[in-house]
Amino acid sequence: MEENINVENQAYELLKSKQYAKLRLLLAETNPADIAEFLKDLTNDELLLAFRILPKDQAADTFVEMESEDQETLIRSFSDSELKAVVNDLFVDDTVDILEEMPANVVKRILRFTDSDTRRSINEILKYPEDSAGSIMTTEYVRLKKNINVSQAISHIRSTGLDKETIYTCYVTDLNNKLIGMVSAKTLLLAHPDEIIEDIMETNVICFTTTDDQEEVAKAFDKYNFMAIPVVDDETRLVGIVTFDDAIDVLQDETTEDIEKMAAIIPSEKSYLKTGVWETWKQRIPWLLLLMISATFTGSIISSYESALASCVILTSFIPMLMDTGGNSGGQSSVTIIRSLSLGDIEMKDLFKIVFKECRVALLCGLTLAIVNFAKMMLLDRAAIVSDGQNALFVSFVVSLTLVVTVFIAKLVGSTLPIAAKKIGFDPAVMASPFITTIVDALSLLVYFNFAKLFLNL
Amino acid sequence: MEENINVENQAYELLKSKQYAKLRLLLAETNPADIAEFLKDLTNDELLLAFRILPKDQAADTFVEMESEDQETLIRSFSDSELKAVVNDLFVDDTVDILEEMPANVVKRILRFTDSDTRRSINEILKYPEDSAGSIMTTEYVRLKKNINVSQAISHIRSTGLDKETIYTCYVTDLNNKLIGMVSAKTLLLAHPDEIIEDIMETNVICFTTTDDQEEVAKAFDKYNFMAIPVVDDETRLVGIVTFDDAIDVLQDETTEDIEKMAAIIPSEKSYLKTGVWETWKQRIPWLLLLMISATFTGSIISSYESALASCVILTSFIPMLMDTGGNSGGQSSVTIIRSLSLGDIEMKDLFKIVFKECRVALLCGLTLAIVNFAKMMLLDRAAIVSDGQNALFVSFVVSLTLVVTVFIAKLVGSTLPIAAKKIGFDPAVMASPFITTIVDALSLLVYFNFAKLFLNL
Repeated sequence: MEENINVENQAYELLKSKQYAKLRLLLAETNPADIAEFLKDLTNDELLLAFRILPKDQAADTFVEMESEDQETLIRSFSDSELKAVVNDLFVDDTVDILEEMPANVVKRILRFTDSDTRRSINEILKYPEDSAGSIMTTEYVRLKKNINVSQAISHIRSTGLDKETIYTCYVTDLNNKLIGMVSAKTLLLAHPDEIIEDIMETNVICFTTTDDQEEVAKAFDKYNFMAIPVVDDETRLVGIVTFDDAIDVLQDETTEDIEKMAAIIPSEKSYLKTGVWETWKQRIPWLLLLMISATFTGSIISSYESALASCVILTSFIPMLMDTGGNSGGQSSVTIIRSLSLGDIEMKDLFKIVFKECRVALLCGLTLAIVNFAKMMLLDRAAIVSDGQNALFVSFVVSLTLVVTVFIAKLVGSTLPIAAKKIGFDPAVMASPFITTIVDALSLLVYFNFAKLFLNL
Repeated sequence: MEENINVENQAYELLKSKQYAKLRLLLAETNPADIAEFLKDLTNDELLLAFRILPKDQAADTFVEMESEDQETLIRSFSDSELKAVVNDLFVDDTVDILEEMPANVVKRILRFTDSDTRRSINEILKYPEDSAGSIMTTEYVRLKKNINVSQAISHIRSTGLDKETIYTCYVTDLNNKLIGMVSAKTLLLAHPDEIIEDIMETNVICFTTTDDQEEVAKAFDKYNFMAIPVVDDETRLVGIVTFDDAIDVLQDETTEDIEKMAAIIPSEKSYLKTGVWETWKQRIPWLLLLMISATFTGSIISSYESALASCVILTSFIPMLMDTGGNSGGQSSVTIIRSLSLGDIEMKDLFKIVFKECRVALLCGLTLAIVNFAKMMLLDRAAIVSDGQNALFVSFVVSLTLVVTVFIAKLVGSTLPIAAKKIGFDPAVMASPFITTIVDALSLLVYFNFAKLFLNL
């Protein structure tokens, strides 16, 4: 795929040297997604020039792939007829995506050039809540009547298909517009021309309602391998379809959101470079503040054991190792559980199995770490411990035993908290490393100091 | 979508009460992916019974969706004719996926029931390296000659389409089997029957070679919204296609891998519940050990400042907060950068922009945290500090100043390390929170103790 970068560079060279005819030929042979990459790095003047050079049939497809700021620049510079040409070639769901990012006056200008049918569809989609199935659907699908035959259906597709988002899945509705079945273009092509749609349609149709979560819809694509999924209203009337390409986008966006939450970031819809410094600060500071305040609780545990620590200062030097290992162990468990929940690999009913497994893994990991740590302390830290006036064997034992208990607590907390969060309707992704770390830090220090008091007579 | 759980329960009730006729009717109306979920929880005997109840046309589709252990159970219990029926209904790429999970004797048994053409295709795909485009492609696609007309092409699809993974994108090859174009079923349906394929085909075809990384192929689906992408050999001869449903699976798997790496876990292909305790231990212990050993370095920094700490024990109680905040700040940056790299939102050439942005965000975050921390310490910790014989203002200042520097270092390290890793050909995902935390811990403690020595005259 390195050739795409070459196309970008080549196009830029042609633009710079004003070889517009050659540029046009090159762009005619380039995928709109790649053209959009080329346009991304241009100045506003170059952008307008390059877009005007584009062959007519590439213009709308390229426009859809562009960054919203560049789209806005273009719309503001377009003549009425240019805008009309682009807007007329857009699919309804793409138009909605674009409108959602534009200021009011630009929205108004775009809507002025859409016909009344399209405008009605746009307004329909715009009224559904963000992140709902309704908000990502399109209204441009093929609808068939149940009593026509295959050749009539194919003629219908031929006459209306050009403007449809997909013609490969056609939906059968009754007189009240209720969804009663679906038939694929493959079935139509392979069936006898005289067969009646009702007899060949699939009646077991998996569909969603307009208010369902878009993430659920996207996951259904992953599970069922559909090309499109119909969206119905409360009375099972067909109102739109979601296509697989939009589902892939949703899956990617939702995963990014999960990853951001796991890293104690408040998710944003914008890509990294498009997010300003203040916005990034707003995404990051709330969790940092909260976790900082929580961590002072851990500090107060240290304060309350100050006298014990003062009589055995060497104990302090193992605090970072214990805290980090606890955090890492808990993070491993929580992240695994969060991702498995999100993929649907585990469910609430698996709780007992999960906890049992995590306990066994925790013991194994804890013991391994403890043995290595014990050996390391006896070999490398012995002198330092002895010079601190302590028994090297006892101190190594206390630290290693704390490791076992810390890892056990960490994995137990890390695996149960995300599930508990889901149970009470919270987002499991928030229960990831940073949060778990804060809890495990406090618990592990409590264990550490109490073991120290017990075994070292502090 | 709650109704699917009902279907599962309902099916289980019918199986238990031996109402097999009713069960068959229910399963006939159920999507194979949902049937597979129902079968997942059955005993081996129930599984075989339920699978035999399945309507013929559901059997292979359901088989594909099942867990590989259950597939193995079934294959071992199948009669020759049962196995043949299922195997003949499978697509080549699905057969390969199944074979890759089976022990040698089962593979042998399956291959005995595939015809020689299919067996050749299977062996072809099996020889490509894991994670390559070749390993996820299928050889069942529609191939057209350039000089036939549209109605001949449609007849060709009609006669061969049933066994193809998709008929919606057809590929045009020359006499040497080189890929020269593609034409969609939509184009064919909307074109005049007499038009020649060569005149309506798309010649600008984005394709991959068999040895390309499957992740690159999957990302191309995300970028271009294709339904299928052709795979060619070194001489641009068409050897297979990858379809969007496989691409979604790859995207999900690769993201899970990234997430696991970010959580210091060695990725596995198996789902959580299917991974044994020892395997999970093996995934988790290497990083835990490595990070534990690294953290002792942080401990040795504390040891070397032991005398300073002994004269101001209160400083110890702020170590957890400083370490956690540093880890969280660095984690935020590294995870954001890693995900953006993976999505293609940022590239190597953006390095300067990224570092500049992270520095500004770091200063904003660090100052905010420092101000809050300073206020908190002066209000809540003043008594404790004073009773430790220190100046509350100076100690609060030292801790807050360390916070600013720590956050700055953390964000700088967190944003540059993943990019540096990518630059030298390592996986950026490894440079996430656990790794960053270990580095930032050491650096922040060095800063802390040096500020303490400087400003508190220890």
